[in-house]
Amino acid sequence: MTEKPILIDNLQYANYSPALFDEMAEAGLSAVHVTICYHENFRQTVENMISWNRHIEAHPDRLMHGRTANDVRIAAETGRTAIFYGFQNCAPIEDDIGLIEIVYQLGARFMQLTYNNQSLLATGCYEEDDTGLTRFGVQAVAEMNRVGLVIDMSHSAERSTLEAIDVSSRPITITHANPDWWHPARRNKSDAVLRALTDRGGMLGFSLYPHHLKSGSDCTLASFCEMIAEAASRYGAENLGIGSDLCTDQPDKVVEWMRNGRWSRQLDFGEGSADNPGFPEQPDWFRSIRDFPNIGAGLADIGFSKDEINGLMGLNWLRFYEHNFTPAVKS
Amino acid sequence: MTEKPILIDNLQYANYSPALFDEMAEAGLSAVHVTICYHENFRQTVENMISWNRHIEAHPDRLMHGRTANDVRIAAETGRTAIFYGFQNCAPIEDDIGLIEIVYQLGARFMQLTYNNQSLLATGCYEEDDTGLTRFGVQAVAEMNRVGLVIDMSHSAERSTLEAIDVSSRPITITHANPDWWHPARRNKSDAVLRALTDRGGMLGFSLYPHHLKSGSDCTLASFCEMIAEAASRYGAENLGIGSDLCTDQPDKVVEWMRNGRWSRQLDFGEGSADNPGFPEQPDWFRSIRDFPNIGAGLADIGFSKDEINGLMGLNWLRFYEHNFTPAVKS
Repeated sequence: MTEKPILIDNLQYANYSPALFDEMAEAGLSAVHVTICYHENFRQTVENMISWNRHIEAHPDRLMHGRTANDVRIAAETGRTAIFYGFQNCAPIEDDIGLIEIVYQLGARFMQLTYNNQSLLATGCYEEDDTGLTRFGVQAVAEMNRVGLVIDMSHSAERSTLEAIDVSSRPITITHANPDWWHPARRNKSDAVLRALTDRGGMLGFSLYPHHLKSGSDCTLASFCEMIAEAASRYGAENLGIGSDLCTDQPDKVVEWMRNGRWSRQLDFGEGSADNPGFPEQPDWFRSIRDFPNIGAGLADIGFSKDEINGLMGLNWLRFYEHNFTPAVKS
Repeated sequence: MTEKPILIDNLQYANYSPALFDEMAEAGLSAVHVTICYHENFRQTVENMISWNRHIEAHPDRLMHGRTANDVRIAAETGRTAIFYGFQNCAPIEDDIGLIEIVYQLGARFMQLTYNNQSLLATGCYEEDDTGLTRFGVQAVAEMNRVGLVIDMSHSAERSTLEAIDVSSRPITITHANPDWWHPARRNKSDAVLRALTDRGGMLGFSLYPHHLKSGSDCTLASFCEMIAEAASRYGAENLGIGSDLCTDQPDKVVEWMRNGRWSRQLDFGEGSADNPGFPEQPDWFRSIRDFPNIGAGLADIGFSKDEINGLMGLNWLRFYEHNFTPAVKS
């Protein structure tokens, strides 16, 4: 007997509005992991959480705050979307290990150790060299393990990612990236990283951000699904899900801010370029949140079983939430 | 004709009080570079600057705020001590390159790129690996050069220090450390670093902190001065001065905080140990600020000339201030 299909998009950073909450419902999404911060410090992150708390309060028919796997089931039963908070950077904990438990208490469930650049914890994928986890980083991983804040290495460099997988006593995630054997890109991940990640029970969320896709905005659904099939054969379908990285309705100044934060006096184009500085155009089969089910259709077309599709589209994330959003139990 | 002798201690972090301001006068110090922060963020650093502004306001007969080399001469002529503000970490600029000019405007004249651990800018001397300057670090060095905020690498790791020397368009400093060929210690510096530093016009300030001294608290004045003589022969006496690292009247909990900040849930003993966790005892010839002139006497005893002694005891720092506390002039 298989569990009822539940759809989860495990990474978005849209410019949310009632119209997009309607899209979540149309898509049948029972959970979305939303990015609460990139470069914001603790106080600014709390401000962003307050904004999300207000969204949830204002739309009780559409949304609920997700903290546990069971919240996803409640959302599915009541036709709503459980919103899980996560950070794409460790900026919110500043230099204070005590803030890890605090942000968990406020609802954070994922935190990247780095966002492109070197952080106090580890090295980002845009630095020339990578020293792996720092002294603070090793302690932060242990504290995240203790409280149940999941490590996400989507924007981290290779050695740091391998060390996080190794040092962490619990499985970690790459919430939004693709294998670099399908599309070589600075943000996509090596086979070695993906094997290490999934060997330890970690999860990969496939990204729909065009810079991570083969042929970019022209990527076909078939190509994307064939990549998933190859990944499933290498890493096990049960360790894979979706983290769309959708930034619907965000103006281009937002991607400029993501790439440059407050640290730069030069304009850094990240995965873009001077000719193509803004958000790239989404592929026509994944333009918006409501296109989420198209992936399931594409997976069926290339021969995935119903159970595998249910897993890839949400149940694998749900199982991961079940085991990793709770505080560590002392043995 | 030599300039009038002027004594400068280019690094202290005492628990300041009117009694210590009297000691500065007794010692004849015309300038002291005081540490304003270790782990404090921008807002907390401003709070510490306010405390110092109040000290200076309350003791106009003893103190003045030092911003330029000329302020040191004014202090010397009026029998006061010019207090220069500096940071032992880049925590005050957080992740914001714009804060570099802001802290300069508030009086900061030195900033370490790291304090023992990895920072957003570079690697500290307690990390296992060292990637050198980060992407933000390269830009921060250029901005510090532009505004006239001097780079200090006292607590940084070797490669980061060499890269800072190389990338900086202006001379940099190691305000408080000794050569490791005299006393091997994690905080003391290699011959390669000291040659690169001084070849580019940078300054080394000799430390009187016992963990940096041969034989620790039992170090003799003669041994310390012989080390200075050897350093003068290797690096040129004109590139050397004093940065005593005196922490007079600080309770042991302060050194624990320096070492552990807010990042650790384990107790790190830094240069100390579980058996010797506190501030070590100062050598009997350098117990307090008023012992500063003893170094000049020791240098005379081993044969330094009067001009060399005047340079080592303060005029070398004064010359450095003259050239490096001003904004860069566009060519």
